[in-house]
Amino acid sequence: MKPFALPIRYHRLYPGEAPLGSSQQTISIDPASTAILLVDVYHAAESIEGKDLVNTLWDQAFSKIVSQCLAPLVACARTVRLPIIYVSNSSPRVEINSSPFGRRLNQSLGFDPSIDFREPDVNSLEFDRGDPIQLFIPPQVAPQTGDYFIRKHTYNGFFETRLDSLLRNLGIRNLICAGFSEDVCVLFTLANAVFLGYNTILVRDSTLATELPDELDEFKHTQRTTLWIESFLAPSTTSEQFIAAISQSEMDKP
Amino acid sequence: MKPFALPIRYHRLYPGEAPLGSSQQTISIDPASTAILLVDVYHAAESIEGKDLVNTLWDQAFSKIVSQCLAPLVACARTVRLPIIYVSNSSPRVEINSSPFGRRLNQSLGFDPSIDFREPDVNSLEFDRGDPIQLFIPPQVAPQTGDYFIRKHTYNGFFETRLDSLLRNLGIRNLICAGFSEDVCVLFTLANAVFLGYNTILVRDSTLATELPDELDEFKHTQRTTLWIESFLAPSTTSEQFIAAISQSEMDKP
Amino acid sequence: MKPFALPIRYHRLYPGEAPLGSSQQTISIDPASTAILLVDVYHAAESIEGKDLVNTLWDQAFSKIVSQCLAPLVACARTVRLPIIYVSNSSPRVEINSSPFGRRLNQSLGFDPSIDFREPDVNSLEFDRGDPIQLFIPPQVAPQTGDYFIRKHTYNGFFETRLDSLLRNLGIRNLICAGFSEDVCVLFTLANAVFLGYNTILVRDSTLATELPDELDEFKHTQRTTLWIESFLAPSTTSEQFIAAISQSEMDKP
Amino acid sequence: MKPFALPIRYHRLYPGEAPLGSSQQTISIDPASTAILLVDVYHAAESIEGKDLVNTLWDQAFSKIVSQCLAPLVACARTVRLPIIYVSNSSPRVEINSSPFGRRLNQSLGFDPSIDFREPDVNSLEFDRGDPIQLFIPPQVAPQTGDYFIRKHTYNGFFETRLDSLLRNLGIRNLICAGFSEDVCVLFTLANAVFLGYNTILVRDSTLATELPDELDEFKHTQRTTLWIESFLAPSTTSEQFIAAISQSEMDKP
Repeated sequence: MKPFALPIRYHRLYPGEAPLGSSQQTISIDPASTAILLVDVYHAAESIEGKDLVNTLWDQAFSKIVSQCLAPLVACARTVRLPIIYVSNSSPRVEINSSPFGRRLNQSLGFDPSIDFREPDVNSLEFDRGDPIQLFIPPQVAPQTGDYFIRKHTYNGFFETRLDSLLRNLGIRNLICAGFSEDVCVLFTLANAVFLGYNTILVRDSTLATELPDELDEFKHTQRTTLWIESFLAPSTTSEQFIAAISQSEMDKP
Repeated sequence: MKPFALPIRYHRLYPGEAPLGSSQQTISIDPASTAILLVDVYHAAESIEGKDLVNTLWDQAFSKIVSQCLAPLVACARTVRLPIIYVSNSSPRVEINSSPFGRRLNQSLGFDPSIDFREPDVNSLEFDRGDPIQLFIPPQVAPQTGDYFIRKHTYNGFFETRLDSLLRNLGIRNLICAGFSEDVCVLFTLANAVFLGYNTILVRDSTLATELPDELDEFKHTQRTTLWIESFLAPSTTSEQFIAAISQSEMDKP
Repeated sequence: MKPFALPIRYHRLYPGEAPLGSSQQTISIDPASTAILLVDVYHAAESIEGKDLVNTLWDQAFSKIVSQCLAPLVACARTVRLPIIYVSNSSPRVEINSSPFGRRLNQSLGFDPSIDFREPDVNSLEFDRGDPIQLFIPPQVAPQTGDYFIRKHTYNGFFETRLDSLLRNLGIRNLICAGFSEDVCVLFTLANAVFLGYNTILVRDSTLATELPDELDEFKHTQRTTLWIESFLAPSTTSEQFIAAISQSEMDKP
Repeated sequence: MKPFALPIRYHRLYPGEAPLGSSQQTISIDPASTAILLVDVYHAAESIEGKDLVNTLWDQAFSKIVSQCLAPLVACARTVRLPIIYVSNSSPRVEINSSPFGRRLNQSLGFDPSIDFREPDVNSLEFDRGDPIQLFIPPQVAPQTGDYFIRKHTYNGFFETRLDSLLRNLGIRNLICAGFSEDVCVLFTLANAVFLGYNTILVRDSTLATELPDELDEFKHTQRTTLWIESFLAPSTTSEQFIAAISQSEMDKP
């Protein structure tokens, strides 16, 4: 497959008195060195225990994004055989509840990761095995044979995981990044990717930040987080623009 | 010195419909395993080139925080001989301008790190040496003999630096963290500290997030970032509370 | 449990003309911050495919060490509830055969890690699942409920694994290290432990280096590797000394 | 410059009863993604304090290798503008003498790194500054303007350094690796390079392992270490083969 032409957007914070603001351009991306990175694309509110933790409006927006943006994005990437890499919360047996990080999840987010991040089909010496509580991946975006799957235990998908080796061995230089939550696991994973030299692009309509109840009517924190990422880390695109770029490239084939 | 009793605050984001919100408690901290971590406490707007990049209102707030909060905090920590560790931007010769990260600094923040992060007193084989443009540490919070100084080249003070080794060798378990900008280098450094198991506390009045011009009247992004950190990473305290806690502990000496 | 007194040995390589050589001392170790680290304690020659890769004399020595040194060591550690941490080869799906490291395993060691390191009870999205070829842990030293298990894919048990977090969260400062092969996975894992500040001790009779056929009569490479480790990385002890130290400490109980 | 054809050698340790042994091949290397990595190419025995630590025969071999192999290798690489990257011991102020690693250097190697690894031209907040004791780089292989220089404090040139970022930003895929000591800093740096996916080649005549006095007549440990590296990590070449390959490629130019 030939390179595809992807419209991207970034933000300019300078000069300090009157920032230049948004800028758009179209960049050429070689599919041979490009992967889709899906961060925590699971439905935490699937079970009763999970539902209590998640705001209803947020959960509705999540479902809409999965159906209308994320599923078409992933389906399109599959048609041109881009590697699909899942980075997902999990519960490795590392005594996380003895750590300041585990304490924060319990005290501030209201759940115990060694219970809420259990999975049925993991090795029980290495992971906490059990029926899922939060980790339900919607069928439309579920991993398929040949996809890659990286389990993480912090917000950063590169922290003590093999994500970097996987990307190096696949020859990936460009990461098209989507998933949840934009201001937490997407942010830290995307940042580490950028620090490691990956050319990273956020799919801004295929993500959602955590929002306080009074921010939810306009998804203010999501908007602010996108602008922040476009300023400090990486340009953004949309699922529609990505799909159009791929389609155009396919149509241009001789 | 005996343990000191520090009031801290964290935020509870659950349950989703009506979060419990702020919570306060007092924790006991052993000074023998505690350090002060100062992130990018430099005055970027000192020179003409730097001034253009920074908003005037932000810069005034920066100076006020340095004088009224940061300087007293550091001075107090010195009286009880807590290690003071600076983590600071720098320009190691790693061809950063060939990287997506370097491109972002140039395109979105408006400066070239290999020029703006020069320092006069570094080894010129390893670093870009030259007169400073952004890196002016205010005299009130300048490093003194015996302090530690870690040079970084990303937003994350642990990324490819010796900060973790320094902390391990010093026997540090608790990090009192302050500096700039709260939503960038403080955030990523503090997060990595938490992922590495350090018991980290943000000094919320001794930091400032990057703010868009229309957010500056209320420092809305700073407030939102503090709430985010208190929710996802670490509790916060204030410089006044820290100073009072140390003073009380000193007074209680037999 | 009280601290136990462990005899250790290290080597002095200086002065250059006439090195001082071996030195012995007894150190006090707090069991509350001590773990047993077992590196690749599997019997690679269990299956027909594996048997061909391993020299018969080496394999006999392996079995003797497991029975006479490693099993008693682990059993003793269990009586005083020291954490037992396994670090073991595995086959995460990271396209290792596309890498220079995978090429070396294939070309120089004669096996494909994505086949030889399969396991039956792992998640098939993340690992290559299948009947074992090399990974047979002898029953006498098999992991038990409550033990910890870290899967690695290089010679270094810390490389892209959660071993460091596990140790930090357990409060471990001292690592009693044994397993195979001394000059490969034990060496690199032990070295990284030392670089990370862990107080590491090699159990020198509970390990074995890879040996060329003409070295096997005296296990010359094992002897040289032990001396190397005692010189550059960490002191050593023996399983007997460890067991005696623990027993003495238990007997001294009031 | 076109790819050059480099003869390499690796070792086959299988089958266990009668290993296949050495194998040679010629590989094509793209100079655009190739760098020279020079590990600790300094003359430790230059000063009186350093001389005492190093064996005289070893020191003579060191000087011969520098003059006859390393200097021509580096000079040749400069003619075709391959990046030259130095990785070198140093003394960052991280309280290394409080660590098990620092203890080993003091007890087993006979020196204090915070004294012996001082340099005159480093920032004194970050490094121990002072007249050199061990760190004397011979003039024939001294760094020149435009070379890269990475300071390390362990045996592993990637541990808490920016070496990986430098290589990524330069677009390096192939590392031609030489320096000292082969069984210590070369070994650990080369291993980490391989784990990170770099295509690494040891220049086996441009390195020397630490040798015990009774091994020095045949440099037995160097020979054994080369065979070990060729078995477990990376193929080897010689300085002559490298220079011939570059010369041939230059002559083939149209």
